[in-house]
Amino acid sequence: MGCTSSDCRNVKHNGEKNQMSKEPLYIIKVGGNIIDDETKLNEFLSSFSMLKGKKILVHGGGKLATKLAATLNIPQQMIDGRRVTDSETLKIVTMVYAGYINKNIVASLNALQCPAIGLTGADGETIKAHKRIHPSIDFGFVGDIDDINTGFISSLLKQELTIVIAPITSDKNGQLLNTNADTIAQEIAKAMYKEMETTLIYSFEKKGVLLDITNEDSVIPMLDKTTFEKLKSENSIFAGMIPKLDNAFEAIHAGVNKVIIGDAMLLEQLTNGKSGTTIC
Amino acid sequence: MGCTSSDCRNVKHNGEKNQMSKEPLYIIKVGGNIIDDETKLNEFLSSFSMLKGKKILVHGGGKLATKLAATLNIPQQMIDGRRVTDSETLKIVTMVYAGYINKNIVASLNALQCPAIGLTGADGETIKAHKRIHPSIDFGFVGDIDDINTGFISSLLKQELTIVIAPITSDKNGQLLNTNADTIAQEIAKAMYKEMETTLIYSFEKKGVLLDITNEDSVIPMLDKTTFEKLKSENSIFAGMIPKLDNAFEAIHAGVNKVIIGDAMLLEQLTNGKSGTTIC
Repeated sequence: MGCTSSDCRNVKHNGEKNQMSKEPLYIIKVGGNIIDDETKLNEFLSSFSMLKGKKILVHGGGKLATKLAATLNIPQQMIDGRRVTDSETLKIVTMVYAGYINKNIVASLNALQCPAIGLTGADGETIKAHKRIHPSIDFGFVGDIDDINTGFISSLLKQELTIVIAPITSDKNGQLLNTNADTIAQEIAKAMYKEMETTLIYSFEKKGVLLDITNEDSVIPMLDKTTFEKLKSENSIFAGMIPKLDNAFEAIHAGVNKVIIGDAMLLEQLTNGKSGTTIC
Repeated sequence: MGCTSSDCRNVKHNGEKNQMSKEPLYIIKVGGNIIDDETKLNEFLSSFSMLKGKKILVHGGGKLATKLAATLNIPQQMIDGRRVTDSETLKIVTMVYAGYINKNIVASLNALQCPAIGLTGADGETIKAHKRIHPSIDFGFVGDIDDINTGFISSLLKQELTIVIAPITSDKNGQLLNTNADTIAQEIAKAMYKEMETTLIYSFEKKGVLLDITNEDSVIPMLDKTTFEKLKSENSIFAGMIPKLDNAFEAIHAGVNKVIIGDAMLLEQLTNGKSGTTIC
């Protein structure tokens, strides 16, 4: 299923040959279910801190924002898996993502001897965005990305800092915007691959892209675009995975060296090809 | 009242003579009452963005955290004007200070063509702290400062970024700590004056140190330590000002070039000596 092992090896080897002088960079998105579980998060951060090389961690928000909104009686509306962000909800996600989650991760990484800095897109103008324009749905204060400040990202990485990004950006008028973390990870990878040998990892609670959602052992080890389209047309891919895979193929198409999808609790195995789905 | 105008000029001139090669740095603490008022905050940020030179803004928390704690039914305890920070309160102040307030200020400054980065003490290990040890009172998760990472602060300032600091730090075990914003401003000033010609400004809702708390025109323009001690012994200084003044004199004693206390809405006048109380 998917591309052959030798196809992927060829892609990888050609990539390596052309980019021998580039330093490796891991951009890792960690999903909400890990963020919600303190024990799992600590275990993940411990493995993450031990990965050699430059690293950027992009975190989602998990259920904390939803819970806080419920406690504060602020109704939440979701369209296509994306939160509709009114001004009260924006306040909550800014507090939870950029405040509570981001700063706890940064402090934990520091304690693991992995000096870190937490950023939103607003900080250092790292990510320039605009409020989403949609012909029929008003998503509220939701951001779509215009530009990544690779110079600033590089300067922080050169100072041996690991960057931890919360999924909040801002527009040119100073409006904060709730922004999809998968997309942030993809856009940073697409902007950084020219300078660094970039591996983008989408880590979550599943072992990879599953052929059968009920069977954790049905991981597709390597997946190319043709096979993905075929599986999609046959409804063989879990609907929730499709935006993540669209993101992954967009990143590979744009030139990102490697994209891997897999279990956040098996981070080392994801980086050395022993687990997860590699996108070809 | 206080030191004479010529005393203060002498101090300033000697300082300038010894430090001609040093670049000016403003470290400005803005108080909670300004943070709470959106119109005032925007006006303050507009003046702040227009100040020439390198700038660090340290913000307090205002009443937002107290309000959120009340809505969430988390009782708040204050001792000597400092919040006792249990784990639920820590979560709230981290969300409000490091999330909501800090990121809105950063996005607003960016929009004012004053590119900014928001930090807690944890980010880039900018401030190392430990949990307060007190012989009789348990302040909870409250931080006392051990060390300021001047190298990292300088590197951000060199990149033409204005630094916006939220009053949250962390210890070596990754524990976040609620930390007094006046003290953070003072400690950064004490650490930076060797590298840069440092002016520390405590800005709030009063015009300066008042001889008569009921009379806004009774500002003491210049205040030295002897006069401060005399006024304190006569109970002529408003009790709430005493910790701020202790901080101010400690900063001057440690070598900070200039310390000014005054109205946040008169920022330009504070920097050019036309308003506020200058500490000698």
